[in-house]
Amino acid sequence: MLKQWKPEEKPENEQMKERLDAARARLYELQMQIKEHKIPVLVLFEGWGAAGKGGVIGKVIKNIDPRFFKVATMAAPTEEELRKPFLYRYFREIPEQGKFTFLDSGWMQETTRDVLKHRLKDDAYELRIESIRRFERQLTDNGYLLLKFFMHISQKEQTKRMKVLLENEDTAWRVSEEDQWENVHYKDCRKVFDKYISDTNSPSAPWYIIDAGSRKWAELQVLENLVQSIEVAMQNSARSVPILQNVFPLVKMPKLADVELTGKALSDEEYKTELKSLQARLEELHNVIYRKKIPVIITYEGWDAAGKGGNIKRITGALDPRGYEVHPIASPEPHEKARHYLWRFWTRLPKDGHIAIFDRTWYGRVMVERLEGFCSENDWKRAYNEMNEFEKELTDWGAVVIKFWVHIDKDTQLQRFTDRQNNPEKQWKITDEDWRNREKWDAYEGAINEMLQKTSTRYAPWYILESVDKKYARIKALKIVIERIEKALEEKK
Amino acid sequence: MLKQWKPEEKPENEQMKERLDAARARLYELQMQIKEHKIPVLVLFEGWGAAGKGGVIGKVIKNIDPRFFKVATMAAPTEEELRKPFLYRYFREIPEQGKFTFLDSGWMQETTRDVLKHRLKDDAYELRIESIRRFERQLTDNGYLLLKFFMHISQKEQTKRMKVLLENEDTAWRVSEEDQWENVHYKDCRKVFDKYISDTNSPSAPWYIIDAGSRKWAELQVLENLVQSIEVAMQNSARSVPILQNVFPLVKMPKLADVELTGKALSDEEYKTELKSLQARLEELHNVIYRKKIPVIITYEGWDAAGKGGNIKRITGALDPRGYEVHPIASPEPHEKARHYLWRFWTRLPKDGHIAIFDRTWYGRVMVERLEGFCSENDWKRAYNEMNEFEKELTDWGAVVIKFWVHIDKDTQLQRFTDRQNNPEKQWKITDEDWRNREKWDAYEGAINEMLQKTSTRYAPWYILESVDKKYARIKALKIVIERIEKALEEKK
Repeated sequence: MLKQWKPEEKPENEQMKERLDAARARLYELQMQIKEHKIPVLVLFEGWGAAGKGGVIGKVIKNIDPRFFKVATMAAPTEEELRKPFLYRYFREIPEQGKFTFLDSGWMQETTRDVLKHRLKDDAYELRIESIRRFERQLTDNGYLLLKFFMHISQKEQTKRMKVLLENEDTAWRVSEEDQWENVHYKDCRKVFDKYISDTNSPSAPWYIIDAGSRKWAELQVLENLVQSIEVAMQNSARSVPILQNVFPLVKMPKLADVELTGKALSDEEYKTELKSLQARLEELHNVIYRKKIPVIITYEGWDAAGKGGNIKRITGALDPRGYEVHPIASPEPHEKARHYLWRFWTRLPKDGHIAIFDRTWYGRVMVERLEGFCSENDWKRAYNEMNEFEKELTDWGAVVIKFWVHIDKDTQLQRFTDRQNNPEKQWKITDEDWRNREKWDAYEGAINEMLQKTSTRYAPWYILESVDKKYARIKALKIVIERIEKALEEKK
Repeated sequence: MLKQWKPEEKPENEQMKERLDAARARLYELQMQIKEHKIPVLVLFEGWGAAGKGGVIGKVIKNIDPRFFKVATMAAPTEEELRKPFLYRYFREIPEQGKFTFLDSGWMQETTRDVLKHRLKDDAYELRIESIRRFERQLTDNGYLLLKFFMHISQKEQTKRMKVLLENEDTAWRVSEEDQWENVHYKDCRKVFDKYISDTNSPSAPWYIIDAGSRKWAELQVLENLVQSIEVAMQNSARSVPILQNVFPLVKMPKLADVELTGKALSDEEYKTELKSLQARLEELHNVIYRKKIPVIITYEGWDAAGKGGNIKRITGALDPRGYEVHPIASPEPHEKARHYLWRFWTRLPKDGHIAIFDRTWYGRVMVERLEGFCSENDWKRAYNEMNEFEKELTDWGAVVIKFWVHIDKDTQLQRFTDRQNNPEKQWKITDEDWRNREKWDAYEGAINEMLQKTSTRYAPWYILESVDKKYARIKALKIVIERIEKALEEKK
C-alpha cells in the first residue's frame, strides 16, 4: 500500500486554515457527545520514526479536555511485560467509555520490529496477525472506536528530520537507535510495513495513511478522519454486531441433568491418602513449571455452596505462595465496568511460570450478566466466541487453561444453605442474593448448559466436578490439574 | 539485637503440636473478625536467605481463605520501579481493609542490600530510615496492622540449607547469587541487619525475631505472634491516634479573605503575548527535565468554577504528550476507599522526567472528607502532617511539587454557575452537588484556611492563583511552574 500510495493533494494555505479551524471546533464539540454516548475511543499512531507522531498527538489533544483523554507511549516491552501475552500491555491501555486513549505507536511497531529483527517468522507471524485481528475486532464489536493512523514520510524527509533532532542535545533523545536503523533500511521496512498494513486492514478498523511531509497538513488529515469516524461511530452506537460462527474445535459436554452425582464419593481414609500424595506431586510440578516458565490458569465456576472455596484451598495448599495468586471475582468496579468486559481478566493474568486461580470468571458474561440483563442479548450471544478467542490467546501464549464447573443438585444446595444459616460461623457465607439466585435455578441451568456446549474447546475444555461429596470433587480437581500440567510438560519436551 | 539475641526455648514435640493446633484454629477464626472489623493486615517477612520465609508463609496462609489474602514476592526493583520513589512499590502492595498481604521480603532487604553494596551511605541511609519510619507509622496510624518478622538462622545452618537446595535442579533457582554472597559475608550482613532492626524498631511496628532453625517451631512463633497482634489490634481498632506536631518548615500564607482579587487582570493582548512566550519556554524546559530525569508534580485545588480545567489546559498546551499525564480525581472507587487514603496518589506518581498534574488531590481529606464526615476528626487532624510527610517523600526523591489554590470570590462563583446553567454546551459542568457545596462556602473557607496554614511547607508551598480574571491566573500559573523548574535545574547543577 505504501509504495504505490498517492497522497491526496495538499490544500492551499487559506483553505487549510479554514478546514483546520472547522475540524478543531468540531472535535471540541464531539468530545462531549463521546462522553454522553459512552463511546471509548482508541487512537493508534504508527509510522516512520521522526514522522511526527508525538507532535500530531500534541495538536489533537489541545481540543480535548484533559480529563477525557490519556496519552500512552509504548516503548519496547519491559522484562515483566515480556512474561505476559503479547497483547497484555495493549489491552491494559484501552480507554474507559466516553474517553480517548492516544497510543504513540503500538502493536504494529512491536510486530514489524520483531519481523525486521528476525524474531518473528512464517507461522509465528501468521499467528500474531490473527491475534491482532481478533483483538481489533473484539474492541470494535464491543463498542470501541478504533482508529489506526500510519504517518508516512519519504526516506529523504526522514533523514533530514533526524539530522535536525540530533543536532540539539535536548531533542537528540527523540531519535532512537531503532529509528536510525529504520532510516538506513528504509526499503526493507517499507516492505514489512506494507504487508502488515494490508494484513490488518479491516472494515471495522481500517488504516488511514497520513501524508506527514508537512505538519499542518498531517494534523488536518488526522483531525478530519477522527471527526468523521466519531460521527459514524455515534450513529452506529446502538447497532447490533454480527455473531460469529464458532471456528474452534469443540469437545462434547453432557447436559447438567445427565451428570451422575450419586456414587461419586470417597471415604475419609481414601481422601486423606490421595490428598497427601496428589498435593505432594503438585508441589513438585509447581517447581517445574516455574523453571520452565509455563503459565497456568485455573478457573472455577459453580453453583452457590457447591464448594468452590474449599476446592481451591486444596489446590493452593500444595503451592508455593510466591508462585500463585487467587483472584476472587465480584461485580466489576466502576473503572472496570467502563471498559471491555475482559479487561479486568487481561490485567490479572499471571506471569509465565506462575499460576492464577480465578474464583468466578469471565463466564459471568453468559450467566449472571445474561440473566440479570446487565448486558444486551447481542453482547452475551457474541461472548461465547469472544471467550473462546480469549482462551485461544492464552493457550497460544503457552498457558495451560483448566476450567472447572463445580456441580451439585438443587437439594444439596438447599441443605448447605440451611446449614450455613444455622451456623453463626458460616452465616457470612450466605446472603439474600444467594436465595434469589436459587429461585432462578432453572434459568441458570439452561444458560450453563449453553455455555458448556459452546465454550468447551479442545485447547480449553470444561471439567465438571461432582461435588455432592466435596472430598470427591477436590481429589478430582487435583488429578485433572496434575494431568494437564504433566501433559503440557510432555508436549514442551 | 541479632548477635546477642537468645531465642526462646523450643517446646517439646507434644506441646508444640498442641500450641500449633490452637494457634492455627485461632487464626482461622480471626480472619473473619479481621474482615468484620475492616482491619488491613500487612505482614512483612524479612531474614536470611534460605531461612524459610516462603515456607512459613505457605504454612500460615493455609489457615486463611484464599479470597482474604495476597502474597507478594518483592524481587529486586525493575527499571520502571527504579524511576519512582523508593516506597512506591511497597505502598502499591498494601492490603485492602479486612485482608492480609504477606510480603516475602521488602523494604528492609532492599535497604540493607543497598548498604552492603555501598549504594547507600551516611546521610542517604539516615534519610531512608526516616522515610521508612514515617511509612510504617502512617500505616499503623491509619488502622493498618503491620507485622515485621525477621527469620533468623546461623551461618552454619544457612550453608547447610543452601547446599541441599542447590543439589536439586528444581530447587536450585531458590538460591540467588545474593543469597550466596550473604552466606560468605554473614558477619558483615549481621551487623547491617542489626543496625537496621534497631533503627526501625518502634512500639507500633516492632520487630519479631524468629528462631528459624526448625521449621515447625518457626511456624509456631510466627502464628502466635500474628494471632496475638491481631487480637490487640482489634481491641484498639476504634482508638484515636496521637496527632503529631509539625516538624517541617512552614511558609506563612494569607487568609483567603485577605487575598486581593480586584485589579488582578490582563488585557487580551497582554495575555496572548505572554501565553505564547511562556508556553514556548515551558516546552523547552519539558525537554530538559525529561533529559535530566526530574519528576514534576503539579496539583490543583480550588473553588468550583474557579477555572481549574482551563488553567491546566494552558499548562498541558505547552507539553509533549508523551511526557505528562493529567489525573482527574473523583470520589474513590471501592478498592481505593478500602486502602490508606494516599494509596491512589502513590500509585499515580509520575516516572522521573515526567510531569503529573492532579486535578483535585489528597487535600480532599481536609476539605470534603472533613466537612462531609467521610473520615473521623482524628483522621483529618492527623492528615496535615501525613500530607506534609508525603510531599517530603516526593521532594526528597527529587520531585518539584507545585500546589495551586485557584481562588475566586463568592459572587464570581454565582455568576459562573448561572452562566453554565444557561448555556446548553456548559450544562454538564454544573451539578446539584456544586450548588450544595456552595451553601457550605463559609465552612469550606475555614477548612481551606487551616489547610493553607498547615501544609504550606518550604519544600512544597501553596500558590494562590487569583482567578476572577482567568487569563491572569493562567499566566501566573505558567510563570510559577517555569520558575520552580528553573530553580530545580539550577540546584541540580
